Amino acid sequence: MKNGARIVAGVDVGGTKTAVAVADENGRMLARFQTKTDDNPAVTVNWIYSVLTDWGSESGLGFSRISAVGAGCPGPLDYENGVILKAPNLKQWSGYPLRYKLSEILNLPVYLENDADLGAIGEHRYGAGQGFRDVVYMTVSTGIGGGLIVQNQLLRGVGNSAGEIGHMTIDPHGPICGCGNLGCLEALASGTAIVRVAQEKMKEGWQPNFEGMGDSVTAKSIAAMAEKGDCIAEKIIHQAMTYLGIGVANVITILSPEAVIIGGGIANLGQRMFEPVQKEVSMRVKLVPFEKISIRSAMHLDDAVLFGGIYLALHENMHQNSRKE
Amino acid sequence: MKNGARIVAGVDVGGTKTAVAVADENGRMLARFQTKTDDNPAVTVNWIYSVLTDWGSESGLGFSRISAVGAGCPGPLDYENGVILKAPNLKQWSGYPLRYKLSEILNLPVYLENDADLGAIGEHRYGAGQGFRDVVYMTVSTGIGGGLIVQNQLLRGVGNSAGEIGHMTIDPHGPICGCGNLGCLEALASGTAIVRVAQEKMKEGWQPNFEGMGDSVTAKSIAAMAEKGDCIAEKIIHQAMTYLGIGVANVITILSPEAVIIGGGIANLGQRMFEPVQKEVSMRVKLVPFEKISIRSAMHLDDAVLFGGIYLALHENMHQNSRKE
Repeated sequence: MKNGARIVAGVDVGGTKTAVAVADENGRMLARFQTKTDDNPAVTVNWIYSVLTDWGSESGLGFSRISAVGAGCPGPLDYENGVILKAPNLKQWSGYPLRYKLSEILNLPVYLENDADLGAIGEHRYGAGQGFRDVVYMTVSTGIGGGLIVQNQLLRGVGNSAGEIGHMTIDPHGPICGCGNLGCLEALASGTAIVRVAQEKMKEGWQPNFEGMGDSVTAKSIAAMAEKGDCIAEKIIHQAMTYLGIGVANVITILSPEAVIIGGGIANLGQRMFEPVQKEVSMRVKLVPFEKISIRSAMHLDDAVLFGGIYLALHENMHQNSRKE
Repeated sequence: MKNGARIVAGVDVGGTKTAVAVADENGRMLARFQTKTDDNPAVTVNWIYSVLTDWGSESGLGFSRISAVGAGCPGPLDYENGVILKAPNLKQWSGYPLRYKLSEILNLPVYLENDADLGAIGEHRYGAGQGFRDVVYMTVSTGIGGGLIVQNQLLRGVGNSAGEIGHMTIDPHGPICGCGNLGCLEALASGTAIVRVAQEKMKEGWQPNFEGMGDSVTAKSIAAMAEKGDCIAEKIIHQAMTYLGIGVANVITILSPEAVIIGGGIANLGQRMFEPVQKEVSMRVKLVPFEKISIRSAMHLDDAVLFGGIYLALHENMHQNSRKE
């Protein structure tokens, strides 16, 4: 590595885990660290400081070589002030001035972004979206988030809230969503939806054997049951992925992007996801040449947000500097 | 008018009528003409030539002052060759090389665009969308079309097919749409949908009195019945507009634009349209600050496409000339 080459950090504060990566100016990761996200945001912020300073000493490159940080976190943000507005799974983080606190402890510029938007940037610049100008990124796990890249730029929308793909209505009379609406894509196709349907089926008498799968009802254990040939589990997964296909068909019909990239834990389902999604798209998309649109897995299933943070730290910082000069 | 000021023409070839306008370089209409669209495209093209040459003589300005033509027509287009690909209501027009034929007879550059996209440009530059960077334009009449303006530019998408808002799935098990899909917005909220539901109700025994309304079942006559207090007609219109509201809620959730502009015949319903649409948006949009998004009628209900054509003729032509110089 050149002596003067720039180094940045990416941070991904998630509902369950927080990850940090250090990267060079080409976006190549030099180190990656992960921990459980603490209910108390100060604990997690201190952990981020520790791993970055420790990395500085242990690598011999020095913490002072890090020039900026790009961070993603869930939920809607107050961009002006770098504050998390609502984080359903991280109650104590709501209202926390994450950008200020990180910037203060690290003494570095910090760029904060919604995690789905940052994932879209990460996949577009360093992942499955490279080379496409118009990309829809969907992250399907506990919830369903999204980010839109239009003409190589993140589409922010009013209140920086564009891309809430998980909350389009797919069935007007469908189940209640965490957001308060009925029949959102998230209420029909997310990990949470899979668990809800499985629990309904268990009340009706389904007795799945989760032995060796953590003994609990999770999207992962249902998927494992489906893999083992359990007919009910198979149907539950298939139904959720069919709804996901309707959501993909809708974004294709509305936006006609060059690529739809699907990330998040659900992408691990592989063909069990792609087959029903492709089928719905080919049945429902009639006026857009869907065969020219690439539907693909994210390249960085766990690291899309980190890569987005790295990109932001490298490029926002550059803009800032060039503005200042 | 200055002697050297530029003059252009806009053309709107619709399923039932064709309109032509002449405008100055500020987009101000100097003249407007309209006729029935002929099944034989050559007849309509000849009519366009006649009204423009007649206008040239009668105005004293001369046909030769017209420097370019922007034209809109329904359905997907082959942009490269300026050919209408599919026009369900204009069978003989499918495959017709409209751009070439118009250009040949007029001896002028002709710019051809899908009519919903051209309507979006017209409303954005000269109508209800002025001053907004991100606009969703929907035209709701027999069918439902759409055009997306992102960062002041028309979003074209793969195959120039972005903005097919009328064909997003709103109810996966809903009625069959003209496009072949089930439960499209168009199959639930268009004029055609209103007529279909009214005919179903008539089979069930509803006996509406269309006296003085042309004695036929049209969206217009059903709306007039609703206006007169007919309970069934009221419910039919209300249900369609509720579905329209779900469609608007979905585009707001996905794109978070600054404005949603609703044009086409349905916009004449006024509050009978806006109330159910606003209600669905406020009930279903939870993660986007919808109160900051303007939902409004088109300014040029009948002329949005013409204004878009005028803009295209003024500006595409300018680009062409500057490229050539």
